[in-house]
Amino acid sequence: MTPTPPSPKGLPEATRADSRPVNRCDHLGAHPFSDTQDGLFRAYLSDAYAATCKQVAQWMHEAGMTTRTDGAGNLIGRYEGQTPGAPALLIGSHLDTVRNAGRYDGTLGVMLGIEVVAHFAAHGERLPFAIEVIGFGDEEGSRFPASMLTSRAVAGTLDALPLDAVDANGATLHEVLHKNGLDPTRYLEAAYRPEQVVAYMEAHIEQGPVLEAANLSVGVVSAIAAQYRFKVSIQGVAGHAGTMPMSLRKDALAAAAEAMVAIERIGAAGPTDLVATVGQLHVGPGASNVVPGQTTFSLDIRAGTELVRDQAAAEICETLQTIADKRGVGLSIELQNDLPATPCNPDLTTQLAASVTHMTGQAARKLVSGAGHDAMVMAALTPVCMLFLRCHQGISHNPAEAVRHDDVHTALLVMLDFIRTFATTTAHKPTEFSA
Amino acid sequence: MTPTPPSPKGLPEATRADSRPVNRCDHLGAHPFSDTQDGLFRAYLSDAYAATCKQVAQWMHEAGMTTRTDGAGNLIGRYEGQTPGAPALLIGSHLDTVRNAGRYDGTLGVMLGIEVVAHFAAHGERLPFAIEVIGFGDEEGSRFPASMLTSRAVAGTLDALPLDAVDANGATLHEVLHKNGLDPTRYLEAAYRPEQVVAYMEAHIEQGPVLEAANLSVGVVSAIAAQYRFKVSIQGVAGHAGTMPMSLRKDALAAAAEAMVAIERIGAAGPTDLVATVGQLHVGPGASNVVPGQTTFSLDIRAGTELVRDQAAAEICETLQTIADKRGVGLSIELQNDLPATPCNPDLTTQLAASVTHMTGQAARKLVSGAGHDAMVMAALTPVCMLFLRCHQGISHNPAEAVRHDDVHTALLVMLDFIRTFATTTAHKPTEFSA
Repeated sequence: MTPTPPSPKGLPEATRADSRPVNRCDHLGAHPFSDTQDGLFRAYLSDAYAATCKQVAQWMHEAGMTTRTDGAGNLIGRYEGQTPGAPALLIGSHLDTVRNAGRYDGTLGVMLGIEVVAHFAAHGERLPFAIEVIGFGDEEGSRFPASMLTSRAVAGTLDALPLDAVDANGATLHEVLHKNGLDPTRYLEAAYRPEQVVAYMEAHIEQGPVLEAANLSVGVVSAIAAQYRFKVSIQGVAGHAGTMPMSLRKDALAAAAEAMVAIERIGAAGPTDLVATVGQLHVGPGASNVVPGQTTFSLDIRAGTELVRDQAAAEICETLQTIADKRGVGLSIELQNDLPATPCNPDLTTQLAASVTHMTGQAARKLVSGAGHDAMVMAALTPVCMLFLRCHQGISHNPAEAVRHDDVHTALLVMLDFIRTFATTTAHKPTEFSA
Repeated sequence: MTPTPPSPKGLPEATRADSRPVNRCDHLGAHPFSDTQDGLFRAYLSDAYAATCKQVAQWMHEAGMTTRTDGAGNLIGRYEGQTPGAPALLIGSHLDTVRNAGRYDGTLGVMLGIEVVAHFAAHGERLPFAIEVIGFGDEEGSRFPASMLTSRAVAGTLDALPLDAVDANGATLHEVLHKNGLDPTRYLEAAYRPEQVVAYMEAHIEQGPVLEAANLSVGVVSAIAAQYRFKVSIQGVAGHAGTMPMSLRKDALAAAAEAMVAIERIGAAGPTDLVATVGQLHVGPGASNVVPGQTTFSLDIRAGTELVRDQAAAEICETLQTIADKRGVGLSIELQNDLPATPCNPDLTTQLAASVTHMTGQAARKLVSGAGHDAMVMAALTPVCMLFLRCHQGISHNPAEAVRHDDVHTALLVMLDFIRTFATTTAHKPTEFSA
C-alpha cells in the first residue's frame, strides 16, 4: 500500500526488502547485547551496554566515522563536513532498553544515523556541516531511578549528577561510572556548546497505532506532549457486601467507576492529541464480600499543548469533585508529575514534512508524540525535529515490537533528502554555524 | 430513642445498662481467649478456642446447665425441660472468629442463650422442652478452607469430612482433631436426629446498618439471602498511555468502569434486599503509563429470594455483554458460588416478630440477612428463626464492632417472651416433640 519511493543515487534497491538497520537491531537483540538471557534488557553502563557500544562503534568506523565515548558514557561517531571541525548536525537516539524490550525502540534511530553517514561516505559526499551520530546511554531510566541522564548531560541541562542513586543490585551511579572507566567529575563535560551544533534530528518508532491506522510508513512529530500525572484517592466507607443496603453505601470503587467513565468521556471529547488514562487502580480492603472503602488510581493526561492538557485536567477535576460530593465520599487529587510540551522546531518540521512528501508522494502526517524522547531534552540545546516510523499494531516495550523493512528504507530516504535540503538552505547562512 | 421495654419477672433493671452477655464477650476478647496478642482471632480448635470453651462451659454450669463437647468440638449446654430427656429448643451461634475480629459476632448469640437459661433456672421455670445452648466451633472458616463444618455436622448435612484440609501452619484437620482429643471417625455423630429438636433460634448482631438507620434495637430475619459470586474478566488491548489515541483504545479498565456503573445502577433499582457488589478488582499490566489490557473483578449479588437475585444477575450479565460488544473487548463471566436462599420458618418468624412488638412497643422490622449464619445450615434439620441486634454503624469483622447494652437487654426480653409463647403454643402439640 505504501507507494514505492524513488531511489536516491547509489542506494541499492535491495535495502528495501532487507534493511541493514533492522538487521543490526535484530543482531543487538540478544546475548551478549542483552543483560538477560530471556528477552532483551540493556541497562545503562551494563556489560551488555558495553558490548553494544563496542559493536556499534565498529559499524560507525565502517561507515566512515571516528568515534568517542563522552563523559556520560554516550557513544558518538563523527563524520566531518566540507570543513574539518565544523559544527555538527546531531542524529541520535538511545541504546538502552526497558526490561523485556522490543529491539527497535531507540536502537533503530541510532542505526538509521549510521546508515545515513554510510550513504554519504560511500559517495564521498561532504556537507557544509559535520554529522555526529549519538547513541545515548540512558533514555529509559533503565538502571537508575532517573531517566534521560545522558541526553541531559549532552544538552547541558543536568545541574547535578545523582551519584548516590542505586541500581537494582545496590550499586551507586558513582561506583558504576568508575567500573566503566568514567570519571564522575567529568560527566557534565559531555555538554555541547550551542555553537558546536546546527540541529538535532531523531528517528524513532511511533510506539503507537496512528501511522498504521492511516496506512503511512512515516510521520513527522510536531511536538512532544505535555503531561500531567495525578494520584486520585477516594475515601468511602467499607461494609459487608451482604448486609450493607445499596442506599446506605459509600462505595469507593463505585465512585471511582463513575469517575473513570467521566475521565474517558472528557479525554475522547477533546482534540485527537488529548489522551487521559487510568492505568493503575487499587481497591481497599479488596475482598469480594466487602464493599470497598478506599480506592486509589493513577490519572495520566497528555496533549500537544499545555492549554489543551490543562483544560481537560480542570474539567476532569471539577467533574470528579461533583461525583464525590453527590456520593458523600472523600476525594483527593495530588499532582505527581508536570511536564511541559516540547514543540519541535517549526522550520525543521516543515522541511522534514516536505521531504516526506517528496519521497513518498503523500502528504506528511503530523503527530504529537505522547511518549518522551531524547529530542525533548535536546530541544534546550538546539532546534530539533523527529521522524516517526510505523510500528506493528503500535506495540512497543514488548518483544513483539516490529517494523517493516520497507518503512525503514523510506525513513532513510526521507532523512537523506532532509539533510541535503537542509545543507542547501543552511549554506546560505554560514554565520549561523561558525564557532 | 429506644422505648424502655417492660421488665419480666425477676430480671434486674441493672442489666439494661450493664449487660452480662456483653461483658462476657468483652472478657473473651483477648488473651488467653485470642490466638493473637494484637486483635481478636479465635480459630476453630485452637488453644484460644479450648480456653474459651472451658470458660463458657463454666458459665453454662453456673446458669444451671450440664455440658458436653460433641464429636465436632462444639460446646453444648443442656437445661432440662419439664420432662427429662425431652426434645430441645436449640439456641446457638458460633465461638470462632475471623482475624482482627469484633467481640460480638457469634459469641454474643451464645452468651444470650446462656442468659436465657440463667433466667429460667433462677426462677425454677421449666418448659415443655429442654433448651440446649450450642457454641459452634467453625462458622467463619476460621482455620480450614471450609466454613460451617460444625453446624453442618450437627444438622447432619456433612457427608464427608475434609480430613486432609490444612490450616495456615500446614496441620491437617485430622491432626488437629487428634490433638484436641477428638476421634475423626466420630465427627459425624454430632448430628441430631430431627425428633430430638423442636426448633433452632439464633441471635446475632446485624453486621449491617439497617436497624441503626431505622433507630431500632432488634429486628427479625425473614430469610438468609441467596447469593451468587461471579468472576468477571475483561480482555482489552494494552497500549502506551501517551501514544494510543482515545479512539483506537480497547481499554479493559474503562470497560470495567462502565460495567461497574451499570452493576450499581441495577442493584440500586431492585428491592431493598437486593445488593450487588464489586469488591475486588485487578488491572493488568497496572502501570500509570499503560492503557489497561486486562481487568478482572469479583461480582457478588444477593437477595432474599432466588427470583430477585436471578433477575438482577441476568440483567447485569446482559448489560455487561452489551458494553463489551460496543467496545470490542472480550468478556467472560464465571459463576464461582451459588447459594440458595434460606427462608426462616414463617410461623416462628411471625411469633418472634410478635414478641418484638410486645417487648418494644414497635412494629418488628423484618430483614433479609445478607451474611451467612449457622441458622442457614440448621434449617435443614429443624425450623429456624433469627433475631438481629443493632450494631454500631453496621461495622463487623473489625475491632470497632460495638453493641449497646440496652439493645442486648431488649434482645434478651424478646427471646424470653418468644420462648414462653412458643412453650404455650407447642404445649398443645406434644406429639411433635415426642421422640
